[in-house]
Amino acid sequence: MTVAVGRVTLVGAGPGDPDLLTVRAVRRLADADLVLYDALSSPEARGLAPEARWLFVGKRAGRHSMSQDTINRLMIREAQRGRHVVRLKSGDPFVLGRGAEEAEALVNAGVPFEVVPGVTSSIAAPGLAGIPVTHRGLSTGFVVISGHAPSSYGPLFDSMAPASVTVVVLMGLGERAAIAERLTKRGWAAQTPVAVLLGAATESAWKWIGTLEELGAMIFPEPAAPIPGYGLMPRLPGILVIGDVVQMAATLDSAHAVATNHT
Amino acid sequence: MTVAVGRVTLVGAGPGDPDLLTVRAVRRLADADLVLYDALSSPEARGLAPEARWLFVGKRAGRHSMSQDTINRLMIREAQRGRHVVRLKSGDPFVLGRGAEEAEALVNAGVPFEVVPGVTSSIAAPGLAGIPVTHRGLSTGFVVISGHAPSSYGPLFDSMAPASVTVVVLMGLGERAAIAERLTKRGWAAQTPVAVLLGAATESAWKWIGTLEELGAMIFPEPAAPIPGYGLMPRLPGILVIGDVVQMAATLDSAHAVATNHT
Repeated sequence: MTVAVGRVTLVGAGPGDPDLLTVRAVRRLADADLVLYDALSSPEARGLAPEARWLFVGKRAGRHSMSQDTINRLMIREAQRGRHVVRLKSGDPFVLGRGAEEAEALVNAGVPFEVVPGVTSSIAAPGLAGIPVTHRGLSTGFVVISGHAPSSYGPLFDSMAPASVTVVVLMGLGERAAIAERLTKRGWAAQTPVAVLLGAATESAWKWIGTLEELGAMIFPEPAAPIPGYGLMPRLPGILVIGDVVQMAATLDSAHAVATNHT
Repeated sequence: MTVAVGRVTLVGAGPGDPDLLTVRAVRRLADADLVLYDALSSPEARGLAPEARWLFVGKRAGRHSMSQDTINRLMIREAQRGRHVVRLKSGDPFVLGRGAEEAEALVNAGVPFEVVPGVTSSIAAPGLAGIPVTHRGLSTGFVVISGHAPSSYGPLFDSMAPASVTVVVLMGLGERAAIAERLTKRGWAAQTPVAVLLGAATESAWKWIGTLEELGAMIFPEPAAPIPGYGLMPRLPGILVIGDVVQMAATLDSAHAVATNHT
């Protein structure tokens, strides 16, 4: 008995704008039979795989529309039926997105797969807002960490020397007061610059800049407006950036705006 | 008097393969008059801007072929002559590549500019080798830091709790023994898995996997062979990855190899 063997491509979708997909990602999408996405539902992105079936498997209003097990089983089943499944994941597949778990499931099932790295929003969101994660004299490195729960960021934040590197927190907006308190307790200056970035690389990009002592009380913009091409997002993905590099936005972002309409 | 005003685009070139440029990067290259590059000299990349002048401004044999000041002045002068200058930088422009310094120089000169984020090799190089920088149960984050000198990594390495996040070191191959000693002194286990990755996303990609206690004595491959399409590279860019996620390569990399020839 011969079995048609398909394959799965785990593709990093970048921070939001389909223009920030890689060339390889565009090629894989063009060849897809099925796209399982948790981001990039814009009509423009769908145009990259117009013949494929597109299935949303991400979060809506904080709840997963599909469990991780179900996503894994679906990928494996469709590949075993001979299809090319593209699993389109926000940012880079291996940055806090359970991409490695999906890869492991594919290995265990004997399904061939490929990983296409993407532009991570942890670097691109600050960068597009005029904040370099590293800068001579200000920071020789950066950490990217999940702000989901104290168990994810506590061991690092309780130990690392204040301001030793730029801190980028993903999935940590709900923990922002606790994070500010924890870093302050560790010795970070109350005046350390902080940025909150929402919806980077979308037309609804929104930014707040303040200090560590102001972070807990910051006010979010009004309930998510529809994002052109994306529909009403229950909650925009948000990023915290903490460190002296944030002050660069005052210089770089306004200048940057001069040239952003060349697309 | 009217002055023709050009512009500069700081473009992230990704880890090496032109296929990992973003769609936006390809568009900007197609529109360039002058490309100042420190990476991606392959014929394939040059084909993306065949009409432009290409000028190498990076390092050869450890020495800069052009000082940072000269690069800045060149960008500014050419933009002020009305040209579109693409400054093509390895990885992402704001990850340890002096991109923010170049942006500041442009602001000071009143030259309009844009930043195009790229795929950083700090995440993509491990990812392509089967090493996810984060993975449930192994690591909730990662740090990317310059290994250029003890002053760049010392404050972080001397303070952060052992194994609290994955450590990715760029420009740190020469310091590898000192780094291993420093982390061990801080309490990292001698058996902590470590990967050394050279030339990621090129046909000469090379990988060593061992432990923290073996790192100082690791042997590099023979003197750089010519990289197809790139010529003889004096030294391949190298990356250190330190942490339990490195053990994932044993599972993910062999499987990954099954599907890498679909380009």
